[in-house]
Amino acid sequence: MASSYMVMAPKQLEDPLAHLPCSTVVQYKKGQIIYSEHQPATDIYLVLDGKVKVTRLADNGRRTLVDVYKTDEFFGEAAMNLPRRNEQATALTSAKVMVWSSAEIEDVMVKRPRLGVALMQILVRRGIELEHRIDGFSVDNIKRRLARSLIRFAGRMGTLESSGTTAMPHMTHELLAQYVGTSREIVTQYMNELRRQGFVRYSRKGIVLYKEALQEWLRQNRQEAPAKENTFSLPQPA
Amino acid sequence: MASSYMVMAPKQLEDPLAHLPCSTVVQYKKGQIIYSEHQPATDIYLVLDGKVKVTRLADNGRRTLVDVYKTDEFFGEAAMNLPRRNEQATALTSAKVMVWSSAEIEDVMVKRPRLGVALMQILVRRGIELEHRIDGFSVDNIKRRLARSLIRFAGRMGTLESSGTTAMPHMTHELLAQYVGTSREIVTQYMNELRRQGFVRYSRKGIVLYKEALQEWLRQNRQEAPAKENTFSLPQPA
Repeated sequence: MASSYMVMAPKQLEDPLAHLPCSTVVQYKKGQIIYSEHQPATDIYLVLDGKVKVTRLADNGRRTLVDVYKTDEFFGEAAMNLPRRNEQATALTSAKVMVWSSAEIEDVMVKRPRLGVALMQILVRRGIELEHRIDGFSVDNIKRRLARSLIRFAGRMGTLESSGTTAMPHMTHELLAQYVGTSREIVTQYMNELRRQGFVRYSRKGIVLYKEALQEWLRQNRQEAPAKENTFSLPQPA
Repeated sequence: MASSYMVMAPKQLEDPLAHLPCSTVVQYKKGQIIYSEHQPATDIYLVLDGKVKVTRLADNGRRTLVDVYKTDEFFGEAAMNLPRRNEQATALTSAKVMVWSSAEIEDVMVKRPRLGVALMQILVRRGIELEHRIDGFSVDNIKRRLARSLIRFAGRMGTLESSGTTAMPHMTHELLAQYVGTSREIVTQYMNELRRQGFVRYSRKGIVLYKEALQEWLRQNRQEAPAKENTFSLPQPA
């Protein structure tokens, strides 16, 4: 109730996979399109194996990366509302996905309501992440946004090595640029800078991140880098 | 199924209010805090009357506006996941809200699963809006983001006048800045520019927007204003 502001233990999160019946499995090759903005779709997908990127087409034709999804993660959930538009899903590696129509998911939700709770928790978490990303656009400059993005993807897709570094799969500078909201050229420039500063090593094979050092750099430089290009830049001519 | 990419009619959206039992009603005065980041809360709220703003505290202490909620809209849904943090809700006008604990909502969802479908549709819509906002950060400069924000709030909170203009409640430049992701000073500067260009009139009483003219300006200036300060600015010194 409104007045009960006690400290509560983190609540038990539901597992949607415990409630969903098996469905069609589809295999995609690396680079293959799963759905595109030209096919308004109404299906919901679960990654069984591999990685899938979802991008959006913005008004001016630029593409932004919504996220990269991995095993046991859902994507395409926008179809729960209306046929999805402006969104494209592509297999980033060879990938296996399970597919349900949104009508099927709704049917199961009605029969097994805990599925609704589980999916809602996922959506709420994604909403919080998106809000956090918006905070970043408001307060961070591009280099800091890039650093945060690397730390985030390392957390999502990396494996901790005995040396304390995190090894993560190769991500092109173009893909990072679509997430950070900048051009490929600027990502390349800052990746070079981060490499010279010793925070990252990268090659075609993958990225190795000195995550803790980079987190420390973010903390220490908090006041010195106040989002110049986003937040306090001089206005452009009208 | 995966292969059925037919064109479908927009689906019927569920109304969550058809499924929720009545609960405690709380009245707040203008400016009163409903919940704050100091009280991790687990309640979900519905606006019965008035307007409520939800803000988030970013890492560097800046505040960003998540949204302004009006009659029949939910807020505080982050509590469906874990006790909410970094978020504050404030009555923007005097406001009346109905309050449920997230545990109560879950109980009702299990008894009346269509509530789950309804809430999920709301969350998906909010997710799409957040993604759209991220697109804006990636591709638009601050003036265009401000223009889009005015059009959005006019659509959400404005009333169409016989002259074709849209009248909407007063929003401080500070509040707009927290939504656009910039400083109050820069919003004031661009609001002056938009006023001089004839797109907006404003006073303490409210904002009058020439919405269609502003939409046309956004369309016509699409190529001319490519997000300099966000997307292509020169890097700051490391």
